[in-house]
Amino acid sequence: MTPAVPTAQLADRIRRAGEVAAQHDVELLLVTPGADLRYLIGATGASHERLTCLLLPATGHRAPPAVVVPRLEVAGLAHLGLPELGVEVITWTDDEDPYRLVSDLAGGPTRVAVADTMPAAHVFGIRDALPEAEQFLAGPVTRELRMRKDAAEVAELRAAGAAIDRVHARMAELLKPGRTEEQVGADIAAAIVEEGHTGAAFVIVGSGPNGASPHHDVSDRVIESGELVVIDIGGPLATGYFSDSTRTYAVGAEPSAAVRRAYEVLQAAQEAAVAAVRPGIPAEQVDAAARGPITEAGMGERFVHRTGHGIGLEVHEDPYIVGGNELVLEPGMAFSVEPGVYFDGDWGARIEDIVVVTTEGCERLNTRPRDLVVL
Amino acid sequence: MTPAVPTAQLADRIRRAGEVAAQHDVELLLVTPGADLRYLIGATGASHERLTCLLLPATGHRAPPAVVVPRLEVAGLAHLGLPELGVEVITWTDDEDPYRLVSDLAGGPTRVAVADTMPAAHVFGIRDALPEAEQFLAGPVTRELRMRKDAAEVAELRAAGAAIDRVHARMAELLKPGRTEEQVGADIAAAIVEEGHTGAAFVIVGSGPNGASPHHDVSDRVIESGELVVIDIGGPLATGYFSDSTRTYAVGAEPSAAVRRAYEVLQAAQEAAVAAVRPGIPAEQVDAAARGPITEAGMGERFVHRTGHGIGLEVHEDPYIVGGNELVLEPGMAFSVEPGVYFDGDWGARIEDIVVVTTEGCERLNTRPRDLVVL
Repeated sequence: MTPAVPTAQLADRIRRAGEVAAQHDVELLLVTPGADLRYLIGATGASHERLTCLLLPATGHRAPPAVVVPRLEVAGLAHLGLPELGVEVITWTDDEDPYRLVSDLAGGPTRVAVADTMPAAHVFGIRDALPEAEQFLAGPVTRELRMRKDAAEVAELRAAGAAIDRVHARMAELLKPGRTEEQVGADIAAAIVEEGHTGAAFVIVGSGPNGASPHHDVSDRVIESGELVVIDIGGPLATGYFSDSTRTYAVGAEPSAAVRRAYEVLQAAQEAAVAAVRPGIPAEQVDAAARGPITEAGMGERFVHRTGHGIGLEVHEDPYIVGGNELVLEPGMAFSVEPGVYFDGDWGARIEDIVVVTTEGCERLNTRPRDLVVL
Repeated sequence: MTPAVPTAQLADRIRRAGEVAAQHDVELLLVTPGADLRYLIGATGASHERLTCLLLPATGHRAPPAVVVPRLEVAGLAHLGLPELGVEVITWTDDEDPYRLVSDLAGGPTRVAVADTMPAAHVFGIRDALPEAEQFLAGPVTRELRMRKDAAEVAELRAAGAAIDRVHARMAELLKPGRTEEQVGADIAAAIVEEGHTGAAFVIVGSGPNGASPHHDVSDRVIESGELVVIDIGGPLATGYFSDSTRTYAVGAEPSAAVRRAYEVLQAAQEAAVAAVRPGIPAEQVDAAARGPITEAGMGERFVHRTGHGIGLEVHEDPYIVGGNELVLEPGMAFSVEPGVYFDGDWGARIEDIVVVTTEGCERLNTRPRDLVVL
């Protein structure tokens, strides 16, 4: 079973969610299964066609905190202690309309905010049952809570970082010329589980020209000696917190001097970006710090994505480290710093660590060597 | 790599989707990653915070068929042959607004239908970029195409059924008194992969009282001799088509005569429902056929869910076999027939086969014994 978040802490999150909702001029949060629901009441699982939905009133709103859940799934909520949280459990059967239940609980026209991941089928079901309600995204509310990790959450992210570092430490056994990306990827996926994750959420093995596609996964391509290989891997722990770390390896032989020079620029860029992280600066300043050395070296066009993304109960969440994001960094914010350079049809490289903002600067949660290691 | 659907067939699906959209008075289909997208253009993967979206105009609409995709993921679409399908590929980078691209392509106010699984974040992004468009669900359009399986799809579902039957055939090795549900579940998950699935999508091991919770998964409960255990398992093949089959086993010792009598009623109900399946009858008639014997035996209140769900590229899809669904069955429709009886705090049982409607009646895709087997 998943280690539980203490009830008192969930109660505090629910209370704060109500306060932040009120500050955002939202009256009712509607949260279907996903990271927000797990954060607020500890419920795991994914959305499907039968509606499960937490109704969370903003402070002062008339609706009762409640979970609407299919009767055949209610037993799965028993361990959550919802009554102690003051959350009513309301079941429905296959011959009932769950959206009508939501509407009855809402008690009239309301400014509702729905979870960012809520499927359109439920969004429109709720819209049609509450035709005079205005619908917004709950993300701006829930990110206010989830973006700053508390000590227990940082401990989980630290454990996840150590677990994925142990997988990278085994790369010399796994990543060899003559093997296909798929073969290497299958072994890495197994290692991700062996090192303490509940599953491998993503395994990118981008060899040679495939390394130039940042979101490549694996293919039947045979890895050749002298090539660079981008290994971007991660997964969740039992508590739901994710790891995510990238290293780029040279396999079998030294890469060319030109490749090595470009890699060194990338490494300097990643170092500069991590060095820039501290409370009080806007997120985009970290992005600019990463982009600086790469642009100076004439490779600005090769760095085709943002510098990073927040991480926690989702692999990608706020804060995003991207140009234009003026969000001010605060202690407890956790995100990736992962510049990359991509030479279409030829090769690519990326270096990624998760960092957590501290009172002074940041703590790196991934500590494997960042030099271009030849395996 | 996943076996590809022939380009000519995808082109036909795209053409028909345009026709059905027009019949539904929809002008533009917007399809994010999920089963609809896989069905239409062969693209796998899940939705995330960066928008990937297929725009598919209804027949006669001005918009060009196009996929809007993050630049860092465009390489993942290269193998799909989108140009041969007449689908334009339009990339965006992290400093651009992808919803604006969708709006520009739509070319003005439009009746749009979005994939049922599209996350709210994208639904509202599109809503805000196309404020005068009306938004509907695409499900009623895409289910017209996906609900009737062609011969190749039925062959995949048949292969999936045979694969999960092989897992059930191994149950005597796996399911033993003294083991926990989690231990049995982990072995079953491994067997699901060994027998040809790409993963275990769900593994329910509901022993004793846990069998009374239809959507239980696994727990640390130790299975005891003489108990009934509900085993409901399935997963996707490489082509994306799912298996899903339930058997209820008695472990270690004969169950009581009362349990056996109730089980025999359930078995008769499942048999009656399968016997009822034929083209030309409404889906709810199959539900009624399952409910009949259970209600007659005074256990109507124990059968707390619908009789079945369609299956294909999703585990749960149309047609739903539920009271009130007047949809008329046609050859090629594939769905589960899975009545169950649940005695809270005590025990439960369910029997589930996937069937495909034929010209005369139906073909069962699961063929393991349905008697109460004592392991």
